[in-house]
Amino acid sequence: MREVAVLGVGQSKFGKMPDISVAELGRDAALAAVEDAGINVKEIQVAYGSRLFDLMCTSQDILKEIGVTNIEMVNVENACSGGSTAVRGVWKEIASGHYDIGIAIGAESMTTSPIAGRLIPPGKDDLNGQLGLTMPGVFGMLARRQMEENGATKEDFAQVSVKNHHHGCLNPFAQYKKEFTIEAVLNSRMICDPITLLECCPNSDGAAAVILCSMDVARKYTRNPVRILSSSLLSGDYSYRQDDITLSPLGVKTAQMAYEMAGCGPEDIDVVELHDAFAPEEILRYEDLGLCKKGEGIAFLRSGASALGGKVPVNPSGGLLALGHPLSASGVRVVVEITQQLRGRAGQHQVDGAKVGLAHMLGGMVTGLEAGACCIHILAK
Amino acid sequence: MREVAVLGVGQSKFGKMPDISVAELGRDAALAAVEDAGINVKEIQVAYGSRLFDLMCTSQDILKEIGVTNIEMVNVENACSGGSTAVRGVWKEIASGHYDIGIAIGAESMTTSPIAGRLIPPGKDDLNGQLGLTMPGVFGMLARRQMEENGATKEDFAQVSVKNHHHGCLNPFAQYKKEFTIEAVLNSRMICDPITLLECCPNSDGAAAVILCSMDVARKYTRNPVRILSSSLLSGDYSYRQDDITLSPLGVKTAQMAYEMAGCGPEDIDVVELHDAFAPEEILRYEDLGLCKKGEGIAFLRSGASALGGKVPVNPSGGLLALGHPLSASGVRVVVEITQQLRGRAGQHQVDGAKVGLAHMLGGMVTGLEAGACCIHILAK
Repeated sequence: MREVAVLGVGQSKFGKMPDISVAELGRDAALAAVEDAGINVKEIQVAYGSRLFDLMCTSQDILKEIGVTNIEMVNVENACSGGSTAVRGVWKEIASGHYDIGIAIGAESMTTSPIAGRLIPPGKDDLNGQLGLTMPGVFGMLARRQMEENGATKEDFAQVSVKNHHHGCLNPFAQYKKEFTIEAVLNSRMICDPITLLECCPNSDGAAAVILCSMDVARKYTRNPVRILSSSLLSGDYSYRQDDITLSPLGVKTAQMAYEMAGCGPEDIDVVELHDAFAPEEILRYEDLGLCKKGEGIAFLRSGASALGGKVPVNPSGGLLALGHPLSASGVRVVVEITQQLRGRAGQHQVDGAKVGLAHMLGGMVTGLEAGACCIHILAK
Repeated sequence: MREVAVLGVGQSKFGKMPDISVAELGRDAALAAVEDAGINVKEIQVAYGSRLFDLMCTSQDILKEIGVTNIEMVNVENACSGGSTAVRGVWKEIASGHYDIGIAIGAESMTTSPIAGRLIPPGKDDLNGQLGLTMPGVFGMLARRQMEENGATKEDFAQVSVKNHHHGCLNPFAQYKKEFTIEAVLNSRMICDPITLLECCPNSDGAAAVILCSMDVARKYTRNPVRILSSSLLSGDYSYRQDDITLSPLGVKTAQMAYEMAGCGPEDIDVVELHDAFAPEEILRYEDLGLCKKGEGIAFLRSGASALGGKVPVNPSGGLLALGHPLSASGVRVVVEITQQLRGRAGQHQVDGAKVGLAHMLGGMVTGLEAGACCIHILAK
């Protein structure tokens, strides 16, 4: 397996843009990544695209816009982890020596998707979902359990939103750039007790792209490229919520695989981007990733460790809560963010001295699709 | 790159089965492949699933049914070539040494999809499609050009249907098992002049699965495994239909790549399964694949070369015309068929002495998605 470098990253704006097509969103992200990499589009040898809704030759649609023709293109889906799966696909192509330069693009237009303005609907065969166990329902139950088991309070959940929206104010790509108080978060509309509106990630449109290459290629363009230390992807642990619902067995195992391959542990991670679809979820993920011990996520949050300036800033970009969550774009976007952090180019939301970063995504957790996929990349400068 | 073997193959029935879910169709195919391979499901290390409509954690949905948990699962889409792309994905995993055994599953329930009972609708941004250039429209224009340029007659097109339906009568998995005469095909309802109803593949439900493994693993189970000599996938040649519409530049290039990698030429191929979505298309593909020279597809057909007992039987299974075309299943199904042919286990539609076979799929040719993907595998005993 060859070492793989991140040569270029880019993203579109994130927000509600129903007049902009997925091809246009993807084009903006891909062109930004190409410009960032400093390559000619003709050098791209392979592409992995991801989109959840209306996936149909997404790579082809996007790459046509930027003049990339006659290469291998693969379109992947893995619930919220689809974008991460695309990054992993290109990583594998380079690592195995099949190609030297490739692009991963995640793009989603939620405002023009079949679920525009609605919750992600449960599948036809998903009886629990049809009975009301929607995404907010699942995370509402998890939050209640966190309160029962770990002493979490509604204020703790609100604090995650306050933190991430503060981070988002420092990120020009964030959909929302507004500071919120604990009170404002708690007083926003109740969605699924205890989860309020401002504790839910907004449905958004957007795209992100990364260009990966072999170290030989990378060294022609840059002296000190960001490297991918590990990539891990795991699916189908249907034990989730069977005994201890505050732990994702899939998330824990995927993290263990990522650390093992990277030859490091959670103590070595300087910055994390993770799946915070609902504010209470972020706290669960601290524990999945081993940033703190099981049951100590609340204390970790309260200590300020996960805020900018803390021990391990989590979602310095603003996360899904402040950026919005164009589903398949998010898995690529977290790699874009971690890359910029490691390059020291994250601007106002830079984590000082970040040398190792972790990009996490988890998706497909409604009933019938339990733990669809968890995908983690660890990057280093 | 390691050599890769086909250890097991399986498929569900193909037909209109709106009461059977994609998970059930996929389960039937996967279990058949597992049984054929003689392995325990727990030995499967990686899965690639493909589905075009409502793709959402298809692998996870299917593998949950057969007790496969906690492995890497990737869901891919590439128009009609999605299933082939899944096969290629697993092939790459094994070839690169990342895993030793994996499963590719293609599954589609057309009768419960959003397009049930309708043509594949053109995209919102596809102006030509909205104006009427649907799939039958595209292939109708191609057929007219074949008549103009190459002397094709309506009877030639009908003959493709007669041939493939005859083959289908010999295949227990075919949706239609009925012999048709040239007159019956020509007298069936006109869909898009000159293409009649019996020259269109039916919308169908179905699934297919293949289990691939390293040669080391294969030798534990069988003395003489079918091997994958080459795998090629190419996308995004937007020159299609610009100058000579009777040739698919993408198809030609993908075939050249496949032959080069396999170290053989079209003259070495004993049996072919290819994308015959409409009867006239099969003749175009003879030429793309080099089974005959450019412009000589009609003569090749008329000579009987592509019929069972001919020089290079094409679609001995009955092809999409007789089996039906559950879109993402078809790309896997052609690999299943070629494997059975090379094993000498194709029953009544066996091609005598077949040693090298080619499985082809091409998709995404409506305007706006020109030449979405062509994917070819060459297999040998």
